Amino acid sequence: MTSHLSSGLFRPLLKRDALRPFFLDADGLHLLDQRLLPHEERWTVLTTVEDVALAIESLAVRGAPAIGGAAALAVAMAARETAGSTKQEVIRAVHGAVNRLRRTRPTAVNLFVALDATRAAVAGDGDGAAAAARVVDAAERVVNEDEAACAALGDHGAALFSDGDVVMTICHTGALATCGQGTALGAIKSARAAGRDVKVVALETRPLLQGARLTAWECLREGIPCTLVTDGMAAFAIQRLGVTKCIVGADRIAADGSTANKIGTYGLAVAASHHALPFYVAAPSTTIDPRTARGADIVIEERAADEVRSARGTLLAPATAPVWNLAFDVTPPDLISGFVTESGLLQPPFTALPLP
Amino acid sequence: MTSHLSSGLFRPLLKRDALRPFFLDADGLHLLDQRLLPHEERWTVLTTVEDVALAIESLAVRGAPAIGGAAALAVAMAARETAGSTKQEVIRAVHGAVNRLRRTRPTAVNLFVALDATRAAVAGDGDGAAAAARVVDAAERVVNEDEAACAALGDHGAALFSDGDVVMTICHTGALATCGQGTALGAIKSARAAGRDVKVVALETRPLLQGARLTAWECLREGIPCTLVTDGMAAFAIQRLGVTKCIVGADRIAADGSTANKIGTYGLAVAASHHALPFYVAAPSTTIDPRTARGADIVIEERAADEVRSARGTLLAPATAPVWNLAFDVTPPDLISGFVTESGLLQPPFTALPLP
Repeated sequence: MTSHLSSGLFRPLLKRDALRPFFLDADGLHLLDQRLLPHEERWTVLTTVEDVALAIESLAVRGAPAIGGAAALAVAMAARETAGSTKQEVIRAVHGAVNRLRRTRPTAVNLFVALDATRAAVAGDGDGAAAAARVVDAAERVVNEDEAACAALGDHGAALFSDGDVVMTICHTGALATCGQGTALGAIKSARAAGRDVKVVALETRPLLQGARLTAWECLREGIPCTLVTDGMAAFAIQRLGVTKCIVGADRIAADGSTANKIGTYGLAVAASHHALPFYVAAPSTTIDPRTARGADIVIEERAADEVRSARGTLLAPATAPVWNLAFDVTPPDLISGFVTESGLLQPPFTALPLP
Repeated sequence: MTSHLSSGLFRPLLKRDALRPFFLDADGLHLLDQRLLPHEERWTVLTTVEDVALAIESLAVRGAPAIGGAAALAVAMAARETAGSTKQEVIRAVHGAVNRLRRTRPTAVNLFVALDATRAAVAGDGDGAAAAARVVDAAERVVNEDEAACAALGDHGAALFSDGDVVMTICHTGALATCGQGTALGAIKSARAAGRDVKVVALETRPLLQGARLTAWECLREGIPCTLVTDGMAAFAIQRLGVTKCIVGADRIAADGSTANKIGTYGLAVAASHHALPFYVAAPSTTIDPRTARGADIVIEERAADEVRSARGTLLAPATAPVWNLAFDVTPPDLISGFVTESGLLQPPFTALPLP
């Protein structure tokens, strides 16, 4: 185990043949800056916990599972830097990293699950090097388990789709949002890999346009037929483009099934219900938060007004226009047909899941 | 009547104390270029029918009643230029102008009502000058009647709003969309003028952002409290901002009450219905088209993919992403609480209205 630390190297956490949002090597956390996509594919190397925290806050990396993975690797980086330190110093470094990363974004529960896992790993027998190695291993586990969860989730999700399905989705839930192939978009990939002719209709997802910038881009790259529409077109596109199903990701799923996800999800669920379409949420079980009882208990991040007043730096509205800019909304469980997880298609309540 | 032509002047069709999208004088049709708002207030002078046709096609002037007014004044301009011509030449000029303007945009019926009115006016007794004068008068009537319809519509609409109402709207339905104070936003203005504390929540209205660029701007200018949100925020904003009512404009209302309006309107109506909110359509009766029986009969304009792929010239998506870009959608009458017109709050069917 100490080989990780003595060599100063992780095996690169990048599948060279697959799209991934980041990988860790001896130089630091290499991150594909998602704010610049699809216009530029720029990889940056983050060497400190603060770098990673700022990357999460500024959405250079986003998507609930990817945020969890990036945060875990940042804690691993902090542990790795303690080589030769006492156990107390390792614990202090890990706790400091966790505390900083906890303050980045409030809504995605995967972040807190990943931080709890790496924080818990520092406790135990042995010296500082052993403690640091456990943290590094815990971080790798976070990443690898998410990759495996995406694959299993994809298998279960694929079973929901048939030849000819036209599937509407919001935001971006592909490879760059996770440590694997994706959640909602991953399920569509699995269905297509199984030979089913499934098409995507992607909502552009204002204000930060993850649908236009990332989903449309990933679909083009992966050869998935995808039509881009504005968010306001959702309901009419359901009617006129013959949408048959909706599937979305999640940032936090409460015990009752209330689901926080990218703003616009609730409106899409309402439109799907109006047209009697199945509406699925796809997420690894790390996104389920049994400690949050109801939707009203989920803390929703409010972001800067200028995100709405502009797009990619171009001003769209009066600079002084008052704006309301919640990053997420909450969809009640009665609008959700089922939850696609690595354990299959689940239904709430989720109180029976093991508490992290 | 010939004084219009002999002097070469109309009285300027601009209320100097009020916001208007255009006015006609001896130099031509002065148009506030709505594509540049709110970043720049640029007036351009259009001197030919082709200029006006291009302005309509490119949305330098938009909003169903304003399109009708601009087209009518373009026909008047063509008639005015025939000073000294034979009646046949006047008829030819007017018919040519009408035929060109008919091909600009297909959905807003006000355009065709205005063109039919100016075209009909050229027929009748007298010489070429008399025929041209009739066309000019008919065009002025189109503009003045729309202004009066907005005022009357505002009075009827104001009665729908009470102190404390929070009203969600889409696109832009204020002064710049009409020849008067506006339709849906005009009704809100009338309610506020009557002393009622009514607030606006404006949907930004992608892809062309008429809500962000024009409604937020006009509300700031007129002192109307207005919060700007993205289109995807509509349903959650209804819930979390305490929206009490919705009111929208219209581009064509079929006999059964099916209403073509800016894309996003249908989704907003679905969201309003889900939250049991009243959802009103405000339009002058020139927007009602008894000759179109049902929503499915309304021709919906499809516009360029790049409107969705970009915002104000900034690319937002892969340049090759397939896009579906309908300018309007159709809301069925069962989602509409009532139609606010200059004749009061109406309910379909609209077959009894006089055919234009």
